[in-house]
Amino acid sequence: METVATTAELQAMLEMATTINMEVFYWWCTGLMVIIHAGFLAYEMGASRLKNALASGVKNILAFAFIVPTFFFFGWWIYLAMYQGFTPDFEAAAAGAPWALNMGPNLTDNASGIFWGAFVLFAATTASIFSGAVIERIRMSAFIILAILLGSVVWILGAAWGWHPTGWLTTDLGFHDFGAAGCVHMVAGFFALGVIINLGPRIGRFDESGKPVSIEGHSMPMTVIGLMMIIVGFFGFLGGCIIYSGTAQWTTIFGTPATLSSISFNTLMAFSGGIIGAYIMTRQPFWMMSGALAGIFSAAPGLDLYYPPLAFLMGIIGGLIVPLADKFITKVFKLDDAVGAFAVHGVGGLIGIIGAGIFLAGYPNVEDYPPISFMGQLLSGLVMAALGFIPGYVVSLVMAKFGVLRVPPKAEIAGLDLVEVPLTAYPESVPAASTQPEKPATV
Amino acid sequence: METVATTAELQAMLEMATTINMEVFYWWCTGLMVIIHAGFLAYEMGASRLKNALASGVKNILAFAFIVPTFFFFGWWIYLAMYQGFTPDFEAAAAGAPWALNMGPNLTDNASGIFWGAFVLFAATTASIFSGAVIERIRMSAFIILAILLGSVVWILGAAWGWHPTGWLTTDLGFHDFGAAGCVHMVAGFFALGVIINLGPRIGRFDESGKPVSIEGHSMPMTVIGLMMIIVGFFGFLGGCIIYSGTAQWTTIFGTPATLSSISFNTLMAFSGGIIGAYIMTRQPFWMMSGALAGIFSAAPGLDLYYPPLAFLMGIIGGLIVPLADKFITKVFKLDDAVGAFAVHGVGGLIGIIGAGIFLAGYPNVEDYPPISFMGQLLSGLVMAALGFIPGYVVSLVMAKFGVLRVPPKAEIAGLDLVEVPLTAYPESVPAASTQPEKPATV
Amino acid sequence: METVATTAELQAMLEMATTINMEVFYWWCTGLMVIIHAGFLAYEMGASRLKNALASGVKNILAFAFIVPTFFFFGWWIYLAMYQGFTPDFEAAAAGAPWALNMGPNLTDNASGIFWGAFVLFAATTASIFSGAVIERIRMSAFIILAILLGSVVWILGAAWGWHPTGWLTTDLGFHDFGAAGCVHMVAGFFALGVIINLGPRIGRFDESGKPVSIEGHSMPMTVIGLMMIIVGFFGFLGGCIIYSGTAQWTTIFGTPATLSSISFNTLMAFSGGIIGAYIMTRQPFWMMSGALAGIFSAAPGLDLYYPPLAFLMGIIGGLIVPLADKFITKVFKLDDAVGAFAVHGVGGLIGIIGAGIFLAGYPNVEDYPPISFMGQLLSGLVMAALGFIPGYVVSLVMAKFGVLRVPPKAEIAGLDLVEVPLTAYPESVPAASTQPEKPATV
Repeated sequence: METVATTAELQAMLEMATTINMEVFYWWCTGLMVIIHAGFLAYEMGASRLKNALASGVKNILAFAFIVPTFFFFGWWIYLAMYQGFTPDFEAAAAGAPWALNMGPNLTDNASGIFWGAFVLFAATTASIFSGAVIERIRMSAFIILAILLGSVVWILGAAWGWHPTGWLTTDLGFHDFGAAGCVHMVAGFFALGVIINLGPRIGRFDESGKPVSIEGHSMPMTVIGLMMIIVGFFGFLGGCIIYSGTAQWTTIFGTPATLSSISFNTLMAFSGGIIGAYIMTRQPFWMMSGALAGIFSAAPGLDLYYPPLAFLMGIIGGLIVPLADKFITKVFKLDDAVGAFAVHGVGGLIGIIGAGIFLAGYPNVEDYPPISFMGQLLSGLVMAALGFIPGYVVSLVMAKFGVLRVPPKAEIAGLDLVEVPLTAYPESVPAASTQPEKPATV
Repeated sequence: METVATTAELQAMLEMATTINMEVFYWWCTGLMVIIHAGFLAYEMGASRLKNALASGVKNILAFAFIVPTFFFFGWWIYLAMYQGFTPDFEAAAAGAPWALNMGPNLTDNASGIFWGAFVLFAATTASIFSGAVIERIRMSAFIILAILLGSVVWILGAAWGWHPTGWLTTDLGFHDFGAAGCVHMVAGFFALGVIINLGPRIGRFDESGKPVSIEGHSMPMTVIGLMMIIVGFFGFLGGCIIYSGTAQWTTIFGTPATLSSISFNTLMAFSGGIIGAYIMTRQPFWMMSGALAGIFSAAPGLDLYYPPLAFLMGIIGGLIVPLADKFITKVFKLDDAVGAFAVHGVGGLIGIIGAGIFLAGYPNVEDYPPISFMGQLLSGLVMAALGFIPGYVVSLVMAKFGVLRVPPKAEIAGLDLVEVPLTAYPESVPAASTQPEKPATV
Repeated sequence: METVATTAELQAMLEMATTINMEVFYWWCTGLMVIIHAGFLAYEMGASRLKNALASGVKNILAFAFIVPTFFFFGWWIYLAMYQGFTPDFEAAAAGAPWALNMGPNLTDNASGIFWGAFVLFAATTASIFSGAVIERIRMSAFIILAILLGSVVWILGAAWGWHPTGWLTTDLGFHDFGAAGCVHMVAGFFALGVIINLGPRIGRFDESGKPVSIEGHSMPMTVIGLMMIIVGFFGFLGGCIIYSGTAQWTTIFGTPATLSSISFNTLMAFSGGIIGAYIMTRQPFWMMSGALAGIFSAAPGLDLYYPPLAFLMGIIGGLIVPLADKFITKVFKLDDAVGAFAVHGVGGLIGIIGAGIFLAGYPNVEDYPPISFMGQLLSGLVMAALGFIPGYVVSLVMAKFGVLRVPPKAEIAGLDLVEVPLTAYPESVPAASTQPEKPATV
């Protein structure tokens, strides 16, 4: 140490150190969230039949690739502009216009690219959630358009409304959602629901009497390992949900105080509860690991505030309900959600948001915003459900009407790897001749 | 920068910054340790035969899920209370009681949940270590009870004794074990040894004359990739072994000074030595990657102090001995440790602890605690071995007597995926008809 | 907070905090780069045929294991010594001699081991890049020697020249290469090119008329997941390319200012561009994920400076060109690069270096070093190409002359797993009898 610095110099050094460490924190959040995508890739390829494995992978990779630039060109702007509802705040959003000085290397702005990076990984996650539901029969072009719509428009509008310091759901309804159960999970899950209604089930998913016929993916181990990798990545995701202040206590994105320590407690407890709940209900590893995710989502809005055994309980509830919800939409509505994305993310997220309304009601907010309340959470949850469902349903309906949503039955039966990729997943392995009855689509 | 802060304000800001960055450090340790579990999942499913792959995965996932809440309810308390041996220090442990204000969101405690999170991942690691040894024949209920016993009681008692600032092994014997070779690896390895004695070998593991018959897992690539993922996770694990002081030099958990820089040198050198040692001995990738782990454990107690070529040498020694140790218990004692968990973790950890006694003898301790010594390390190693072995042996013996330890031979022959899960790992692939001779168990 | 510290004490505390956080940053870089190796393991085993899968894995693991100690004993010294060309600076390199006090635990040096750790992972990455090109026919001993040559001598000489604060390419030519596209990617790619010329194609890779016959790896999903894991690891790699100053702005390794924020923007944009470019060209996932890598390399030299849409464009260009480059060397030169390593890393890196010459020309340098220029980048790129190519070509030529480079045709046809490992990758699966025509090598 050379000459002694003045307090002013020390303060400047400390503030720069804090800026640097903030960048580092979100950089690792971003890097770890890429593991979510390695996980989704394994999960969705494993959940596809041999003939479709690579095509599912291609879609998953392309969704990520298209969301990044579109989120650069307009997604980030939407977040900064639309927090009041549908009226953009052009002034606030100026820094997010693709030509703004903040949207590129800028030695006076160590923040924009780092936050954008974390957000774009959230965006890509919504697309990957949706992606699993529609495998094995959606058309590539339709998928990409829907993925961009979800990842660079719809969810980020939800984030502007309900996952933003001054989003209207928070300022008007006291909405509290630490871990983005609403804008990420519910929006993506309900968007997927809207699409699969118009997309229709895979050929053979229901027999002539309408009874569901199970279609198993070709590699359950690959799927389960992929799901555990998604859990790893959630440490990046949940890190990306807390605001690093550096020389002051952490806050949620809503400005309420929090600690990373509490997130550690509650994430692990909710994860465990989700596994145990799903194990009780199903005894099989696909739902156990899906339950692990659902457990986290079921506690996500209150990870900052729950007593850990309560997070555990919320996890169990999520793990118990989510497989039933999937069975319900399959049996009753004859919907084919290939990986249970609606149940895990849509229903899991809704449980989380309503649970926070029950267990955290009355918790105060910053400024003069209303405190957490059951009605505030319920209404906000409905807004998120509608925000996801409506665009997914409407746009896929139009696509279906024009016949551009789904591959032709012939291609579906032959397998998308042959038609779209074209490459064989395992050229040296012998597949079992015909594993599932292939019948004409009932849709 | 606005108005200049006073030195008191600056100091408060710096201390808060340090607290925040401490939380961040252990948060990433925890997140990276979840990769250990993704790795174990791949490793143990790959090491199982086709008929048992998913059942092995289910056990692995359930172990993690049950250890988290039990470690919340009593494991952490044991750590804080039992450092003197078997006499609890109720006062010191009050902060770890599940109803304590520290065991949940608390804006004045940014540490408890973060440390608890890292420790619970250590706990889950012990269960996953044990899990591999007993695959393909243990009963689910017995496994879960044993996993909780190991992960939320036994190892953490070992940690209180020998991986704690004032654990009696350190204060009385000068025990030094930077990387938890004792409480994590030896305890888990010897616990596994105790259980497999009573569990007995898989049907067909030894022929009628008692000669071992190799039972290969169904996917060696999956196993090897899983092992490399465990290595990745060890950067979280070893990060979790060093105390972040923020504005002062790092220390070990025993309070002796250290640098993360030295851990970087020695971890990589020991890892490499382990691979090379095991390659010389076996030329095959399963043992090479197991050797990589064993190499790290063989140097783990002295990662803070070794000259890197010595860590490399310790790694080679570990890599050479561990496959032999596994062969020895198989051939001589007719034990069936399905993945060599006892050899890799139990023997690897013991090499590490004794090695530190040889190469670090005389290194001073903090306070008036005795310095590192050969006898101190040897005795502490024996304590860890006994602490792992006895509960594993006794509880599994009782379970075996009551006939609740092992699945019936019929279920074992049919495969646990059919009996327990029930789901098929690869529904579209053709398995080779009968790959291993299935004979009645010799136990 | 107790008594108030003086400004001198505060400054010391802040400087120590900065040192600690610097260590933490590079520790995570190192840990995340280990994921690159888990990824390469999956990628290269998946890209091998069933009969060679484990042998490819063994080579990959051994390369890592041998590079660590050799990089300790002489690699790091080369980096510190050789920045002027071929004349070592013994004084500057003294701290990197294996007996130096800096090369081990040292409470006054928190930096050496951490930087060495990150660099050794870069070194191991070069070996893994090379490894993929030569699978399925190179002899183990030859491979290890070549891997050590590349990873602990050649690339690090390139780093001393062109990825060092005072490397001669920078001080004389103004060379700018933020993300090590030259010393890591080009050197490794051109080294691989030099070796495959002498190694010759796999038996059956070209038919009698010299027409290429595609040889598919046994598991495309494993390969694609592995590639996505490499992307994850690149967040560690690119983190390792930026200098943490703690209380002042980040710099590149050349001393020019930068932000991590800009790296976040541009890495994600280039990654996406690479996927889209390769998808347009090939529509298949192997090249899409290889294109993701190539996209990053194509923008790597300017990740600190590009406007993000330019990084996206560079990524697209890389993604478009790289598959063509691979086709070109296959068709025209009858070379067999099993995974396209030369195209992805060699050509991708060259695109990056020349692109920076086009788009960043005139950007000023530190000290009185020349600014970035097209000719400076072109000449430096040629130096990197030659530096990689010549040793790879010459040493493998000598090995080929002595008949120690390649396994005998009999062993190649039987499969290296049988000959070298010996273990079967999937003992319970039925392989398709003979998938590719096995004809005598044309070399």
